[in-house]
Amino acid sequence: MSKKITPRQKDYSEWYIDIVREARLADYSDVRGCMIIRPNGYAIWEKMQSLLDARFKATGHVNAYFPLFIPESYIKKEAQHIDGFAPECAVVTHGGGEALSENLYIRPTSETIIWSAYKKWISSYRDLPILINQWANVVRWEMRTRLFLRTTEFLWQEGHTAHATKEEADEEVIKMIAVYRDFVEKEMAAPVVLGRKTESEKFAGAVETYCIEAMMQDGKALQVGTSHALGQNFAKAFECTFQNQHGALEYVWATSWGVSTRLIGALIMMHSDDKGLVLPPKLASRQIVIVPIYKTERATVLEKCNEIQSMLKANGLATFIDDSEQNTPGWKFSEYELQGIPIRLEMGPRDIENKQCVVARRDTGTKSILPTDATLPMRIQGILDSIQATLFKRALDARYQKTRVVENYEDLKTQIQMGFAVAHWDGTKETEAKIKNETKATIRCIPLDETFNKQFDVLTQGKCVVTGNPSPHRVVFAKAY
Amino acid sequence: MSKKITPRQKDYSEWYIDIVREARLADYSDVRGCMIIRPNGYAIWEKMQSLLDARFKATGHVNAYFPLFIPESYIKKEAQHIDGFAPECAVVTHGGGEALSENLYIRPTSETIIWSAYKKWISSYRDLPILINQWANVVRWEMRTRLFLRTTEFLWQEGHTAHATKEEADEEVIKMIAVYRDFVEKEMAAPVVLGRKTESEKFAGAVETYCIEAMMQDGKALQVGTSHALGQNFAKAFECTFQNQHGALEYVWATSWGVSTRLIGALIMMHSDDKGLVLPPKLASRQIVIVPIYKTERATVLEKCNEIQSMLKANGLATFIDDSEQNTPGWKFSEYELQGIPIRLEMGPRDIENKQCVVARRDTGTKSILPTDATLPMRIQGILDSIQATLFKRALDARYQKTRVVENYEDLKTQIQMGFAVAHWDGTKETEAKIKNETKATIRCIPLDETFNKQFDVLTQGKCVVTGNPSPHRVVFAKAY
Repeated sequence: MSKKITPRQKDYSEWYIDIVREARLADYSDVRGCMIIRPNGYAIWEKMQSLLDARFKATGHVNAYFPLFIPESYIKKEAQHIDGFAPECAVVTHGGGEALSENLYIRPTSETIIWSAYKKWISSYRDLPILINQWANVVRWEMRTRLFLRTTEFLWQEGHTAHATKEEADEEVIKMIAVYRDFVEKEMAAPVVLGRKTESEKFAGAVETYCIEAMMQDGKALQVGTSHALGQNFAKAFECTFQNQHGALEYVWATSWGVSTRLIGALIMMHSDDKGLVLPPKLASRQIVIVPIYKTERATVLEKCNEIQSMLKANGLATFIDDSEQNTPGWKFSEYELQGIPIRLEMGPRDIENKQCVVARRDTGTKSILPTDATLPMRIQGILDSIQATLFKRALDARYQKTRVVENYEDLKTQIQMGFAVAHWDGTKETEAKIKNETKATIRCIPLDETFNKQFDVLTQGKCVVTGNPSPHRVVFAKAY
Repeated sequence: MSKKITPRQKDYSEWYIDIVREARLADYSDVRGCMIIRPNGYAIWEKMQSLLDARFKATGHVNAYFPLFIPESYIKKEAQHIDGFAPECAVVTHGGGEALSENLYIRPTSETIIWSAYKKWISSYRDLPILINQWANVVRWEMRTRLFLRTTEFLWQEGHTAHATKEEADEEVIKMIAVYRDFVEKEMAAPVVLGRKTESEKFAGAVETYCIEAMMQDGKALQVGTSHALGQNFAKAFECTFQNQHGALEYVWATSWGVSTRLIGALIMMHSDDKGLVLPPKLASRQIVIVPIYKTERATVLEKCNEIQSMLKANGLATFIDDSEQNTPGWKFSEYELQGIPIRLEMGPRDIENKQCVVARRDTGTKSILPTDATLPMRIQGILDSIQATLFKRALDARYQKTRVVENYEDLKTQIQMGFAVAHWDGTKETEAKIKNETKATIRCIPLDETFNKQFDVLTQGKCVVTGNPSPHRVVFAKAY
């Protein structure tokens, strides 16, 4: 099977597409830039949804659902927002066999439709805060698409909150980017740099955008989550005011935050290898595959496999057996390596005799012989925990190796071919644009991560690597997906 | 609060809309016929999703996601399907600022986009069956909309399965309508009649449509779920063949089945009363509200309320306290009756003294005094179970009272003002159309429910109530939503 996967060293981009296709995670449909998320890929999204949703609810949020369609007049109400989004919208002009009197935009994001509702729901400080999240599909007419990373239609969640004070809204924005970080690092085993976007890179309509940025194996950055302080921009655009405790009218403060099926792309690019997908155990809907190995003793071996499966399942371990007769054990080994199942458990007649089984780790390829007694589930859980930790550490180590402080523009140009360049910048849009035009690198963020900042001496003053003008602190440059 | 709800006797339709609005379940948006599902309504949908999804997975199905957009050429491939759906589609003609070379239809249902993918995935009998479900939004340009029951955009799940034989596909169709029945009766406490649709009433493109039909409190029918045998229609339209075990090429057999946010409308209309929503405990994300009652002893009472809440939560009972000071206990009683919370638990200083609490049932309005010892969670669970059973029995009794066998057309005309009319029909489209035109009643189904059929003498031969021609068995006529 592994022959079907182009090696990373040969062509990283082909390697990625091969894994998505061969592990049956997604397919392009015949509609331009739209993907079909196949069951193996969707199972990852369901795990992500359930782990994220629990975190949203634990922080006081509730789910709701707003319409897919946005009237043209709504999307035009917030000036920056329309500039950012209108050119990439899909537009419905006909419905029920007739031309519509007003065009409807398919939501590229839902601030406008949601704030037109909040206007009706909010009149007093007693109606605040509103802490709503929505799981939905959105459409952005992308020119260049790549499965999971950038598709015309994608699935996401978008939180939209309304607050009485700037302080409370600011707290929400930071709280949610921290929730994303916690999810991505603990469940996806993907280390990220948490930071703030520059003026040029922030969300259309936002006052401030916070982000988490991950480094892929090829050293490029991938933005995996954002949280926006929207100030009173949308409240003003939709005339959404409330009476405060002293009876005065004020505009409502807004935030929005989202992650999308792009996370699946990050997951694949972060951990996988030339044999196929590598899934962190916490996001694997199937954690252990049992492969029976026999010549004539099929019934005996299968009986033992079933017994072990029951024991593992009873302990909450997501286990399945592949007892198909049309494929060899060798074929099965390759197939489940390709699919990224964290642990393979092999069981043959000699194993039964010796009251043992062979357990192979997907991440390291190492094998252990474990006793098939009552300690097995605990030992397997231990290996799953170890895989989760190993994947995170491996990715973090790789990121440290590929991140460097650079003191001049030439070094920046070299370093962004390898990974993250931490450099001084004079804070102007002009310098940022010049660097982007000349190198294709963007400022991923102004990092706010204490460990990262210490390691890469972010918080010292210096001089811009391009203009030599004063710079209050360093920022992270990288090429990005 | 209850003054805001129009009584059922006065105007059933207004009563329904009042409940949806006052319990904050949904709102119309400013986009024609599109609704906003508010957090209270969406919480019901989340419960439904989780209980249905578990049933789908237990029957071997997996989830996937297919594109929102369907190329015009696809939707035109199955002749009956296009006749049924094209007139009610929303059409995207522009994307990314340009006119599209081919119009894209927003999916009204996904058979065409899914079968164009299955064609690529299926080549051998080894690739079958495919048992896929999708949770998605769909759009049908409805002329007359009603919140939850009929909206331009709605949320649903659609199962699409592919099989090697007609027998296997038929088994799937019956299995899934039975899964729906089990869900609707056990979780929604809503009795249904399971049956088969007539030729005129079946899904556009289906060979056979099975349905479950519920009776609302006003005696009208509401179709709450359907399961379709699609034969080889879509396989032929998309040229989807497979090589069977003997090496011959055959067309694949298809099924599809779905339920939607319309279920929430059914739930509201089935159980609610003039005070507001009544939620079956199994679909209530909040099952018990604790209302503290005090004059000066706030701290003591709240401490006890918290203690009871912890005890109930630890036993899996979804409990919350309303300790807000701005509203009176009386206001809270009305508010949570309106919201349909199954149980209200009142706690005051005298209750603490007597080691007891007052527990009020939403369904019957009866109150009990229960000891606040370790038996409380068990007793409360018992009351929740009793509410669930009572709601089902009440609805079933009402349906039996409003269902009658009729032997002539005049009696049919009278009976369909009250409820279901079980009558002989000659099996022709012409008679069916005549009855529909003259009475607005449709044939809801040819019932397949043994108990129902015995009760209403369905399986005897007779003469059509309109033409007097022979009829092999009775069918169910009713006005419907």
